[in-house]
Amino acid sequence: MPFEFNKNTILEIQQLIAAKNDIDLSVMLTKIHHADLAEILGEIDFNVAVYIFKLLDSKKTSDILIELDDDTRERILKELSIKEIAEEIDALETDDAADIIAELPKDRKEIVIAQLEAEHAKDIVDLLRYDEDTAGGIMGKELIKVNENWSIFTCVREMRKQAQNIDKVHSVYVVDDHDILKGRLSLKSMLTTSTKAPIKTIYNSNVISVKVNEDREEVAKVMQKYDLVVLPVVDEMSRLVGKITIDDVVDIIKEEAEKDYQLAAGLIEDVEADDTIFELVKGRLPWLVLGLFGGLGSVFIMQDFEEIMQNDRLKTLFFFIPLITAMAGNVGVQSSAIVVQGLANNLIKGSLWNRLLKEVALSVINGIVLSLLIVLFGQIMAYDLNFSLAVAISLISVIIIASLIGTFVPIILHKRGIDPALATGPFITTSNDIFGIFIFFYIAKIMLEF
Amino acid sequence: MPFEFNKNTILEIQQLIAAKNDIDLSVMLTKIHHADLAEILGEIDFNVAVYIFKLLDSKKTSDILIELDDDTRERILKELSIKEIAEEIDALETDDAADIIAELPKDRKEIVIAQLEAEHAKDIVDLLRYDEDTAGGIMGKELIKVNENWSIFTCVREMRKQAQNIDKVHSVYVVDDHDILKGRLSLKSMLTTSTKAPIKTIYNSNVISVKVNEDREEVAKVMQKYDLVVLPVVDEMSRLVGKITIDDVVDIIKEEAEKDYQLAAGLIEDVEADDTIFELVKGRLPWLVLGLFGGLGSVFIMQDFEEIMQNDRLKTLFFFIPLITAMAGNVGVQSSAIVVQGLANNLIKGSLWNRLLKEVALSVINGIVLSLLIVLFGQIMAYDLNFSLAVAISLISVIIIASLIGTFVPIILHKRGIDPALATGPFITTSNDIFGIFIFFYIAKIMLEF
Repeated sequence: MPFEFNKNTILEIQQLIAAKNDIDLSVMLTKIHHADLAEILGEIDFNVAVYIFKLLDSKKTSDILIELDDDTRERILKELSIKEIAEEIDALETDDAADIIAELPKDRKEIVIAQLEAEHAKDIVDLLRYDEDTAGGIMGKELIKVNENWSIFTCVREMRKQAQNIDKVHSVYVVDDHDILKGRLSLKSMLTTSTKAPIKTIYNSNVISVKVNEDREEVAKVMQKYDLVVLPVVDEMSRLVGKITIDDVVDIIKEEAEKDYQLAAGLIEDVEADDTIFELVKGRLPWLVLGLFGGLGSVFIMQDFEEIMQNDRLKTLFFFIPLITAMAGNVGVQSSAIVVQGLANNLIKGSLWNRLLKEVALSVINGIVLSLLIVLFGQIMAYDLNFSLAVAISLISVIIIASLIGTFVPIILHKRGIDPALATGPFITTSNDIFGIFIFFYIAKIMLEF
Repeated sequence: MPFEFNKNTILEIQQLIAAKNDIDLSVMLTKIHHADLAEILGEIDFNVAVYIFKLLDSKKTSDILIELDDDTRERILKELSIKEIAEEIDALETDDAADIIAELPKDRKEIVIAQLEAEHAKDIVDLLRYDEDTAGGIMGKELIKVNENWSIFTCVREMRKQAQNIDKVHSVYVVDDHDILKGRLSLKSMLTTSTKAPIKTIYNSNVISVKVNEDREEVAKVMQKYDLVVLPVVDEMSRLVGKITIDDVVDIIKEEAEKDYQLAAGLIEDVEADDTIFELVKGRLPWLVLGLFGGLGSVFIMQDFEEIMQNDRLKTLFFFIPLITAMAGNVGVQSSAIVVQGLANNLIKGSLWNRLLKEVALSVINGIVLSLLIVLFGQIMAYDLNFSLAVAISLISVIIIASLIGTFVPIILHKRGIDPALATGPFITTSNDIFGIFIFFYIAKIMLEF
């Protein structure tokens, strides 16, 4: 059963520490999964966290280190000596090890690397060369590879040797004498074929791989599309250099989906509820300033129409401004969300012209329903029908324009290689506010002849 | 290398069909991955799609079927006989098979099940019992299990037998004589231990499992937290009944993250860019109607202040309405997005009181910066300072209230077991519009004494 995190666990830990009962504490802690321990260490008093960390062996603490939130990890690493850090890193797989090394302050980085076990250090230094947004940046060096000329028997013997240094065996890759990736050996075919069979005859050559410099978003898409648990990475000469596992990619998929929502919500950076106030201000203020400028822009448009405030019938137009901006905003955000998610999932196909027609048709339908409600409201309020119709027709126009802006601005950005999610949320609501108010007053002016 | 979908492939297929060259066509198609073929079948003329589908064997077409978009799958299934559908389903793993059966029209369901291979049918019928939002609803029956009393040698022999019916071997589970899950056998330990060793001595008893009735979101969280590729599912008596693989969960993780964004963007259902206009209207109109009612509510609030339209100084307040509603909306959406993502990732810890203080502090900082810009704007526009200050202080108040609504409405919903994402986007912007306008005019009224 998954561990249920609760206050009793923390209380028990604190009691054992108070009683200086390291033996029982160790026994208790080894029973807890490293992911749960990371959660606990993030919760409790920092000194207790360091105490616990130093009590456990590096096999466990290295796993904890990876699961910790960034802040706690940084603080704990500061409490460790160079030798202790090197021990932690030696216990990690190369991809995680490289991530930790990359986070170290510059002056500690080289000293730590010098302390690492030689073979491991070579792999890590190699991984540090790659941009963290590429396949190379997320891959690990641990993999089991066998030569196509071996028999299953030789292969199992070699695998036994290689597997000793690897935590989880995901897949067995087949390479030729030049290390070029030829295919994949399934556990199933190994289990169901005679051990004397040569690998050449049983491996599956239909193996999907990515190049080291492939973008990590693309890597995530490939793994998702082909339902892969592990994906081999090859260099420019098609030589097998590493593998990416799905657990790393799950985080990327989630981050990408969350990033779109954050941008749509007007958050500039990846801010989280437990960030500092300063980080939150930095993440939130820029979009608010944009919104403020939009609002100030509206002041000028509305000023242009201030004389109608003297007209008993026309001044009511001002009361509809919040309705118009809300509709323009909501429609724009809906359209942009559909486009941004569609682009992320490769669903935006077909011609732009068809999409334009579809958005207009959709807006007209939504607009007519909403306009009927407006006219009904106008009848109840005893506005004259001309006035209600003017508001209704303005609303339809605003909805059409808003949905077109919401649809096409992201598409255009995407075509120019800019993240379309940038043009959602505050960007769309701000521009649609201004366009909406402008259209609303001008159409009313034409229809009501003022 | 991942397949690059292009128009040449489709052209080539069309040429081969026109030339009635089924042999070359088959050869060509077998080389294409089923996920790519599914993409192609979704693109090309439907009759050509059916032709291709019938040309391929059920081993390949069953895989294609799973990857097809819902519409194309439904249409293709309609073109198949009961016997053909049963062949497709027999070629699928139980979880996918159950999904397809569940999608069939009621009258075909039972007839198809009657045609299935008996053992497979039993598993599928069993799976159909579970709610699709639970672990039981996403698990598959295929797994390799060994008895704790066997030796590795017996175990490998049994695995060879069981593996013949299973496509991908992810993990080997250890059960006792009553089928109760005891642990997991790693490929590594099998590779690195003597074949005579009894399983009892080498299996890992620290296996994480979920109950069949566990919510699928919770399943996704468990797999993510513990970096699992496959997760065993047990029934109420702890007996091993199935397994969930990460590829199914990746889709859930993505859907959940996307669902939050969709709700925030005012989309009621899971609408996509290529849905029909009717589906799009159904997904979008309800939130727009909510926004409309909010807008009509604002009409009444503003009417209350219509007399100040006669006052040259005070009427300028009306020009700031779009700014106030934009700020209230943006701040509310930001706050709610942070809370909703925080709740989804278990980051909302600590007391509500601290969170309240933090939001207020944050709002005051953002509010002061924005207010300074307002005062500056007022100076440029030669408003009197009292007026600018009234607008500025109203703005700060609106921002504080908006951020509190955005933060606490989702938290309260979450505590009551309601999806907090419902209280984002249009819900927050609409309520914040109304509160914003109300607060703005009342604070201005007090400060400017009208």
